Amino acid sequence: MIKPLPISWFYENLPEEQLLEEKYKEIIKKNYNLSGFSPLDTPVVERLEALTSKWADDNEIYGLHRINGEQWDDASLGLRFDLTVPFARFVASHEGVLTFPFKRHHIARVYRWERPQKGRFREFYQADIDVVGNGKLPLFADVEVISTLYNALKELDFGNFVIHINNKKFLQGFLEYIWVEKIVETIWVIDKKDKVRKDILTSMMDNLWLDTQQKESIFEYIRIAEEYSHEDIFSYYSHIENDLLQQWLQELKYVYFWLKQLGVSDENLKINPAISRGLNYYTGSVFETFIVGAEKMWSISSWGRYENLASHFTKNTYPWVGGSIGLTRLLSILRELNRLEYVSKTTSQVVVVNMGDSFLKENLSIIKKLRLHGIACELYLDGEAKLNKQFKYANSKNIPYVIICWEDEMKSSQLQLKNLQTGEQTQLSLNDIIENLSA
Amino acid sequence: MIKPLPISWFYENLPEEQLLEEKYKEIIKKNYNLSGFSPLDTPVVERLEALTSKWADDNEIYGLHRINGEQWDDASLGLRFDLTVPFARFVASHEGVLTFPFKRHHIARVYRWERPQKGRFREFYQADIDVVGNGKLPLFADVEVISTLYNALKELDFGNFVIHINNKKFLQGFLEYIWVEKIVETIWVIDKKDKVRKDILTSMMDNLWLDTQQKESIFEYIRIAEEYSHEDIFSYYSHIENDLLQQWLQELKYVYFWLKQLGVSDENLKINPAISRGLNYYTGSVFETFIVGAEKMWSISSWGRYENLASHFTKNTYPWVGGSIGLTRLLSILRELNRLEYVSKTTSQVVVVNMGDSFLKENLSIIKKLRLHGIACELYLDGEAKLNKQFKYANSKNIPYVIICWEDEMKSSQLQLKNLQTGEQTQLSLNDIIENLSA
Repeated sequence: MIKPLPISWFYENLPEEQLLEEKYKEIIKKNYNLSGFSPLDTPVVERLEALTSKWADDNEIYGLHRINGEQWDDASLGLRFDLTVPFARFVASHEGVLTFPFKRHHIARVYRWERPQKGRFREFYQADIDVVGNGKLPLFADVEVISTLYNALKELDFGNFVIHINNKKFLQGFLEYIWVEKIVETIWVIDKKDKVRKDILTSMMDNLWLDTQQKESIFEYIRIAEEYSHEDIFSYYSHIENDLLQQWLQELKYVYFWLKQLGVSDENLKINPAISRGLNYYTGSVFETFIVGAEKMWSISSWGRYENLASHFTKNTYPWVGGSIGLTRLLSILRELNRLEYVSKTTSQVVVVNMGDSFLKENLSIIKKLRLHGIACELYLDGEAKLNKQFKYANSKNIPYVIICWEDEMKSSQLQLKNLQTGEQTQLSLNDIIENLSA
Repeated sequence: MIKPLPISWFYENLPEEQLLEEKYKEIIKKNYNLSGFSPLDTPVVERLEALTSKWADDNEIYGLHRINGEQWDDASLGLRFDLTVPFARFVASHEGVLTFPFKRHHIARVYRWERPQKGRFREFYQADIDVVGNGKLPLFADVEVISTLYNALKELDFGNFVIHINNKKFLQGFLEYIWVEKIVETIWVIDKKDKVRKDILTSMMDNLWLDTQQKESIFEYIRIAEEYSHEDIFSYYSHIENDLLQQWLQELKYVYFWLKQLGVSDENLKINPAISRGLNYYTGSVFETFIVGAEKMWSISSWGRYENLASHFTKNTYPWVGGSIGLTRLLSILRELNRLEYVSKTTSQVVVVNMGDSFLKENLSIIKKLRLHGIACELYLDGEAKLNKQFKYANSKNIPYVIICWEDEMKSSQLQLKNLQTGEQTQLSLNDIIENLSA
């Protein structure tokens, strides 16, 4: 006998949790589809040389082997750790037949070996959208990606959230403007601002030979980024006489302005020039999203623009904007905040009581008609079980309705519909029941 | 530079193929949900000891390892090769909190190392439903599983198919009735009937010491199974005086009768007592499904009943009926039969022409309203592209409509709707367009 133990950090849903996860997936997918991001589903398995080509931490990657038998070429395969590297590979594999700009979505699991810690999983869902251009990709693509993620997050209706938006070039431009030399390293330090104390941040800056005035400018920059409204940020920086900085400020304003036009509310939007995620590989817009009241937890949706997505796989230049909702992470944060409400343990809306084979014909015609009208239902499987046991079954799965069709009901064509939540029992024709339950 | 090569036998869809696969998945899922088979999504990764506990061919299993760093406990993990073993493990893991009978569906990928051959993949989709009882599971469960698969296959509307149904006990009972001793081995030989010549089958039977009369009886049994109608089969065997055989015949008749009541058409149903799949582990109903005209290719939907699903993981007895649609296999057969019709390369129904930022406000309000009404659409991203290029983009993605909103249209509130298939261009208000496209 083998103990059916759970595998650490590979989570597994119970039926009621799964139904909620499915609902989240459906809402996200619907919004992605509505914006013309078409589904794509690359293999879970990629060549190791593709996986390790870029951005990868080797320590995180799972390789494959046959547990028995010759290895053939399987020794060179591994599990994807994100959906972006496989997408870059896909674009390069099929560049000759894709129409650009190419928009896709991919809602799927990725695999990362991680040291066991809270909130981290070794298998988890990402819900990505990507748009990739051939040679060039207009700035409006950034607006399209962020607004699509916004629509999905809004419809998920889990509470308030704020999307923090920046343009990497603006941050870089500012650092150039105050004569910082080690731009990449300084951005790396700024990225640590929420994780370390101010004095540690200062000494990290000292190590980069930043002078007192530069350090003060950077702290002031962070303060303005975090505390000022978008109007004040735009107006503050519009006074700085530096052409490049003004150009990047225009880009930031452009994204903000058109997001507003697409209906993104100010409540959910924060222009935050101190956002610096992605170290050196993002080259334009970057954003991160936090649930209000849970800012100290992980970002639930992020990513940005990168000017050369598939550079490791092809000579051609494919500028890209991508965004992702961390579905597993979002659900795990909401679980911790006690905001998940499990409604049912099955898709069934109705249990038809089974009183044995002499009523089966009638019962099955009820089942058949309910399903034809899109009402999920099931016959209680055991015709010898007592009524009470059948009610208990429906109750314990949170199925809201039970239909009883016995001798009297067969004669009168009036069925008994019992609402298990209220206890109310009514006599109705099957057509009326269908009308009630479809509403 | 790394060549973005495909991985042998791991297939990858282009956007138009993916949209079709998604449609198939949606229809299957809808029908599974309607019958109260609730979604479940166990990890792709299981412990090797669970994977190798039962029914497994070690040669097929992929194990995991970290490509760099300490192995921890990851060396004992592997990829699932089907969805049933993980389900058995799931039932045992959670037996204390599940309500039985427990019904679930699972549409997901499984992984098998296979010698390269046509029609085989190393990663492929299965679409399973399962119902599992605690201690007992009424025969009606078999009806429920088969009729649900039937509903899904019917709605997929790919052409005619026939579900071949048998009851393993009936076949066993018949062999006992004709005094066959090596039942399991004889069933194994019968299972080869479509794959080897009759003389080879005969010599295989000789090896099992079957006498001439027994061999003749078996060939006659196969002939009747394949050629007789269900009425003739039922009536033929009802004359044999053997209590056990009569009991199993009743079971077969029961399944047939109630399937008919649930609307399964005779055209799609074949009582076939020679179906013997699953060697010795199926203990009741078994079935296989073939596309008419492609019977020599693989079965597209099968499985059966097994009286003790989780015996390797728990002391408790969980009788189980499971059925599966081999989604990847079905699509690959239909592709070969030239029956797949790719409709579009994106979810977008409409491209809104982009004539630059001076029209963007108006264009975005069109986009916003279309999406609000559930019409998938996109703005052409590059506002500097010529009209022709924008039409070409829509055309090459098979997007049926283009909306043009320029100066005149902004003044009159009448937009241009161009149908790219017919070339027809009409002036309509946005509300009329929405009404047209929603229809």
